[in-house]
Amino acid sequence: MSRVLDGADAVAAFPLGGIGTGNVSIGARGELRDWELANAPGKGASLPFTFFAVRVARDGHEPVTRVLEGRLRPPHEGDQGYDAGRLAGLPRLQSSRMRGEYPLLQVELADPGLGLEVTLTAFTPLVPLDVDDSGIPGAVLRYTVKNTGAEPADVTVAGSMANPVGIVGRNVFHFPEFAGHPRNEWRDEDGIRGIRFGTDLGERDLRFGSAALTTTDRDVTAKPQWLSGFWQDGVQVFWDDLRQDGRLEPETVESLDPPPHPDWFTRLRVGSLGIVKTLAPQEERDFEFLLAWHFPNRARAWQGNIGLDNAGAGDVVRNHYATRFADAWGVAAHLAARLPGLEAQTRRFHQALHGGTLPAAVVDAAAANLAVLRSTTCFVLENRVFAAWEGSFEHAGSCEGTCTHVWNYAQSAAFLFPELERSARETEFRHETRADGRMNFRANSVFGNAPWEFHPAVDGQLGAIVRLYREWRFAGDDAWLAGLYPGARRALDFAFREWDADGDGVLDSKQHNTYDIEFFGPNSLANSMFVAALHAGARMAERLGEDADAARYREAAGRCAERMDALLYNGEYYEQRLDDVDEHRYQYGTGCLSDQLLGQQLAHVAGLGHVLPAGHVRSAIGAVWRYNFRETLAEHHSVQRTYALGDEAGLVLCSWPRGGRPRIPFVYCDEVWTGIEYQVATHLIYEGLVEEGLRIVRAVRDRHDGRRRSPWNEAECGNHYARSLASWGPLLALSGVDYDAPAATLTIRPRLDAPVVRSVFTTGGGWGEAEVGPDGAALVLHGGSLDLVRLTVEHPSLGRLEATGVALRAGDTVSLTAPTTPPEEK
Amino acid sequence: MSRVLDGADAVAAFPLGGIGTGNVSIGARGELRDWELANAPGKGASLPFTFFAVRVARDGHEPVTRVLEGRLRPPHEGDQGYDAGRLAGLPRLQSSRMRGEYPLLQVELADPGLGLEVTLTAFTPLVPLDVDDSGIPGAVLRYTVKNTGAEPADVTVAGSMANPVGIVGRNVFHFPEFAGHPRNEWRDEDGIRGIRFGTDLGERDLRFGSAALTTTDRDVTAKPQWLSGFWQDGVQVFWDDLRQDGRLEPETVESLDPPPHPDWFTRLRVGSLGIVKTLAPQEERDFEFLLAWHFPNRARAWQGNIGLDNAGAGDVVRNHYATRFADAWGVAAHLAARLPGLEAQTRRFHQALHGGTLPAAVVDAAAANLAVLRSTTCFVLENRVFAAWEGSFEHAGSCEGTCTHVWNYAQSAAFLFPELERSARETEFRHETRADGRMNFRANSVFGNAPWEFHPAVDGQLGAIVRLYREWRFAGDDAWLAGLYPGARRALDFAFREWDADGDGVLDSKQHNTYDIEFFGPNSLANSMFVAALHAGARMAERLGEDADAARYREAAGRCAERMDALLYNGEYYEQRLDDVDEHRYQYGTGCLSDQLLGQQLAHVAGLGHVLPAGHVRSAIGAVWRYNFRETLAEHHSVQRTYALGDEAGLVLCSWPRGGRPRIPFVYCDEVWTGIEYQVATHLIYEGLVEEGLRIVRAVRDRHDGRRRSPWNEAECGNHYARSLASWGPLLALSGVDYDAPAATLTIRPRLDAPVVRSVFTTGGGWGEAEVGPDGAALVLHGGSLDLVRLTVEHPSLGRLEATGVALRAGDTVSLTAPTTPPEEK
Repeated sequence: MSRVLDGADAVAAFPLGGIGTGNVSIGARGELRDWELANAPGKGASLPFTFFAVRVARDGHEPVTRVLEGRLRPPHEGDQGYDAGRLAGLPRLQSSRMRGEYPLLQVELADPGLGLEVTLTAFTPLVPLDVDDSGIPGAVLRYTVKNTGAEPADVTVAGSMANPVGIVGRNVFHFPEFAGHPRNEWRDEDGIRGIRFGTDLGERDLRFGSAALTTTDRDVTAKPQWLSGFWQDGVQVFWDDLRQDGRLEPETVESLDPPPHPDWFTRLRVGSLGIVKTLAPQEERDFEFLLAWHFPNRARAWQGNIGLDNAGAGDVVRNHYATRFADAWGVAAHLAARLPGLEAQTRRFHQALHGGTLPAAVVDAAAANLAVLRSTTCFVLENRVFAAWEGSFEHAGSCEGTCTHVWNYAQSAAFLFPELERSARETEFRHETRADGRMNFRANSVFGNAPWEFHPAVDGQLGAIVRLYREWRFAGDDAWLAGLYPGARRALDFAFREWDADGDGVLDSKQHNTYDIEFFGPNSLANSMFVAALHAGARMAERLGEDADAARYREAAGRCAERMDALLYNGEYYEQRLDDVDEHRYQYGTGCLSDQLLGQQLAHVAGLGHVLPAGHVRSAIGAVWRYNFRETLAEHHSVQRTYALGDEAGLVLCSWPRGGRPRIPFVYCDEVWTGIEYQVATHLIYEGLVEEGLRIVRAVRDRHDGRRRSPWNEAECGNHYARSLASWGPLLALSGVDYDAPAATLTIRPRLDAPVVRSVFTTGGGWGEAEVGPDGAALVLHGGSLDLVRLTVEHPSLGRLEATGVALRAGDTVSLTAPTTPPEEK
Repeated sequence: MSRVLDGADAVAAFPLGGIGTGNVSIGARGELRDWELANAPGKGASLPFTFFAVRVARDGHEPVTRVLEGRLRPPHEGDQGYDAGRLAGLPRLQSSRMRGEYPLLQVELADPGLGLEVTLTAFTPLVPLDVDDSGIPGAVLRYTVKNTGAEPADVTVAGSMANPVGIVGRNVFHFPEFAGHPRNEWRDEDGIRGIRFGTDLGERDLRFGSAALTTTDRDVTAKPQWLSGFWQDGVQVFWDDLRQDGRLEPETVESLDPPPHPDWFTRLRVGSLGIVKTLAPQEERDFEFLLAWHFPNRARAWQGNIGLDNAGAGDVVRNHYATRFADAWGVAAHLAARLPGLEAQTRRFHQALHGGTLPAAVVDAAAANLAVLRSTTCFVLENRVFAAWEGSFEHAGSCEGTCTHVWNYAQSAAFLFPELERSARETEFRHETRADGRMNFRANSVFGNAPWEFHPAVDGQLGAIVRLYREWRFAGDDAWLAGLYPGARRALDFAFREWDADGDGVLDSKQHNTYDIEFFGPNSLANSMFVAALHAGARMAERLGEDADAARYREAAGRCAERMDALLYNGEYYEQRLDDVDEHRYQYGTGCLSDQLLGQQLAHVAGLGHVLPAGHVRSAIGAVWRYNFRETLAEHHSVQRTYALGDEAGLVLCSWPRGGRPRIPFVYCDEVWTGIEYQVATHLIYEGLVEEGLRIVRAVRDRHDGRRRSPWNEAECGNHYARSLASWGPLLALSGVDYDAPAATLTIRPRLDAPVVRSVFTTGGGWGEAEVGPDGAALVLHGGSLDLVRLTVEHPSLGRLEATGVALRAGDTVSLTAPTTPPEEK
């Protein structure tokens, strides 16, 4: 999506950072913002004196020095104006134009007085299917500078950065306070040079860590540690030093304030690294910086707001990335050494994702929310254990335990980094499913702490079974499935006993669910999930030779589907059946619930097809669209949390087109959640209501336009909310690429009505681009490998195209043309 | 100033509340914001579910219910969207137009779908010279509703409010957490009815307090306490109740969640009070609410960031207002009973201030910053002891102790509420001036805590002497002066010993000052203050018969002025004389300091006239204008705090037009402070450089336009910064009204070149309007009394007009016409 943001898009923040590494973001003025390196969220956290600047000198002209950011825009309100650390009083560039196509960012910075064109390219490598190559705690910041003047230009680009290690809070003047003593150090080794930011904290200290601002460039100048002191001597001397000749002098003393220094004396340590080049007229050169960080330690406990047992909080557990890199310098050296390959793969993925023909909003949604996986919402512990919050509050994780009923909606990880979802299934079925089959829907085993005592969640528990099927089907590892199956069987059997009190095959007792309340009686959400889970269970049992289970689940699925349809389908959509909708609070009764077919949607994505009567499903999802999508919310009355409002469009969670709204309906019923919007959009597309699905996706993304909300952060209960990872669903549904690893088949059935449908696709072992055009179809593999018994294309005009025995390696292509010609293979 | 703000002016916040009472503000959408009732700042603090709503019903039409606020504007970013307490999902009105002329606010709210015109009038009474009538912890919120439809309209205006007593923090969901248990209670007594918000905290608890949402109207409907609970049942039921019939039902139970409730169960208690009226077509009616609060207790210590001794922090001291009112109900009853008189006086002052002919920006500056005196920056303790911070950080006071060198610049209190400044002088000269004459420039005696151990501040200490003179001259109480004179003499004599090490009559040793650093050597700031203080000292000594002192001070003043002029005047402006400007950090040397004539400016305001050679003074202040005022700051390089930037205009603290900038100049030299801008503007006007002075004032106010910054909050080191009270100076200088109580004379010498110069004026005992027109002049007294030996008008065309033996009481007028006719008296 070639949306271009400018400096007025003040809430846009493009996050850099890898899977499980934390982030620093770049705003629409090109500024560094939201420092979240140290295993905790920190939206709004700024690092003082941390910025890039440019100095340009030409013979006979006054040198010009500028902060490499677009100008600050109003409001300028602050209890101390802008504190000194923000350097708001330095001149900036007249304009900035940001084009963020995750995972790649470009910001064009321009100013007529500069005689230079500057483009910042920033990214952290992202390689599909590769958690490690996509999990580097660092980023490339490359300033491409073109001399547009008629004379040679001496150019310095200097990055300055405060040592971020050990920050424990901010004082009233907005300056960070530190545990331990940060220390900056100049290094030139391992093919890079720059500043290593360290600390005297012990290696097991929770705050221990390091950072590095480096370059592979040899034309450098540096002031590794500014003067520090009670006042801001350091920045004055730095700025004057830079302005004077574009070369930085190392300081000979730490501070001009005579020692000894009291304990409250500032521990802030800032350093600058510059790259210096002379550019001929019209010459363009890169000034490339590698930023890296390394905060290895987490407390061995969630310490979240739900209150899971935190017995391990006194211990330390390491991030997975800390087992790969000794410190931030090691990260930077690794990034430098592997950059050409990593960048090439990242660009190939970027091109496959953004260069296809799917509608811009669909690609934008799928791409932008990948940031969730690389945000503070997610992390990977040593031994590659994936764990995640629901989202990220401003300064803490939101709702711990890789919550099953929230992650239910997520598709992006399953299809791009399936290892992560497999890890979650292992946690769920090996460690969180009790002997009686009750699954703790928030996992505490990842930290080795006591399991959570709470009632089970019907949607989360049953969804996990469908997702286990999805993961197995995508990876095709029967042994892995066999290891988890016992837990899955317990979890599925638990549903009959726990939620089907009267044994009629339809779940109808007290059912906790993702709306954080309990539904009573037969309802569409729980039973659509049940049917899907039973089908998934049957397929898995079948594969593993558990024929009795398979038959039992298949029979139960049929019974549940039939009875649910009879009980809940009102001729238009599926309801909740209650004699008195107000006997219990928080029900929906005759309401048209957006999630009424969540199970069916999961079944579609997982390749299970229709598990409920197709005609009724199509009618019901059409009703969801008709009743719950609003072109404007100006007349909407909601006293709940608000994610869409005023003239914005959005899909509400529920409506009561036939009356019957409870006095106190469920507590989120009038809200708009992007995760549900995406799952409904996905479902609409699967059912052929393509335009309706696309309209919803556009609505979501229009709300995230950089001015209203950041394009790279869809919040629900927390920023970077996991449910928004449902955003991969519309891409799957539209492109129609369905991979079945156990069968070794790949089927393409595009649902977009377009002359050429070209999109990124993934399988458990490879990824590339699939294209269906007027004359046939083609697959190109960019990474991994793909061995298929059969490749099938359901071509919109040419009918079915097939190839058999397809074996592709990275770089290979296979093309299928009309059946009159035999399929070409490589 | 008839500046009209709309909903896009998102940072505008008009504070309600009295002197020393804390505030709640109203934003440009008409919304209540920034709840700061409980003796602490809280910018950004919202109170959940606290808002006004309107319901209108007409026969044959669907009733319409709306939040009485303009629509929310982007950005809509938040880590949980908008939390439920903000009710962002309810419909609001299409437009809002805010006109804030402190102390009166009007917000017009309009929506085509409503058939009503609604105007909110909000204010807290402000009566010049009367600290008590201007110190009511409450506000009037009057919604004037006009039925613009063709049919009668049943209208309910309902205010809802969360009990604000005992808030100790916010949870991750942004909801307040409480000490104690808030309880709401319906009352109908003392001529008012409504909801009293109480607590079960003890009366000596720091968090103890009460609030009240009341009305004198008899047509009421109420739900004194919403349902409370784990979820937001209460708001759903409230909103539906209001929408249904515009009448509210009291709830019969506290919560639908079955007891017993765990300790973490919400303590939030919300209540609603509605006023119900039927309006004929085109009829207009008032729906008037009185909001009051009462948080009597403060810790007996500053507990500020400077670190003064806080030994008394365990004790409680009361606000002065708590000695006047038993609780918030008492406040509301008082406000109700006295409202006609208080409103009339408030409106008279508003009209006198805003209805004159001084330039809009000057009036706007003077009026808007009166909010400082009624902000969390200032407070009045029992026994009417005035105390103040420098400003207010977001959640704490900024820099404690009624800092002498910051309050040096303030003029508003001296001329509108002189009792407050007299209290400060009493603190300074009775309690904070030590035996050797060193004055603690931050007062800890107001809390009875140990004095601060720090070096004295040359500008603050000497300025206090000029201000003592100013206060005495304005009030004319010789006994009061005699009581403080010994301290003043010690303080003045201290200067000779402490700061004039070589005894040459010019201060030249280490001089701490308002830039929070030490100047060395002879400098214009300290010595201009010294000369002014010596003149003030001489005048006071003379009056008290201390002739030796008088002579000594007069002689020293002459010597200092002469030598300062010789040493520091460079032919254009006054410098700092140093052999090596970099021997000490933080000097200004040859710089053109905006404050170089601060002492002379104070002398002008205090009626001391020129204390330095008038020609040099005029040249120097002209140089300040020429070199330090910037029409744009786009090319300004400042690494310091930033209060003005980019395309904004502003006056920097210092510049070096002749070179010689130190390597590390004083730490605020490149900043822009409104307090200094106002003092320079005042001075320019006194010296006849009127247009230049006005340009500066306009620049300040253009930066506070509601979109860039709030018009009612000029921040420096904290919001509502005390130095901004220099904003009364331009009004004084332009209107040229000078009152001399000891001489019982009032002189008017307008400096504005306009056909009619009409302005508010004050004396120690009365206030009114002064007008100088083509045919003569007139004084009308609106409050207090004024007995003059002589009234003199220096008329720009008619020459001197005089009246003798003038005695005015409130309502009286005296007119002077051309000398051919004898002056008319009443």
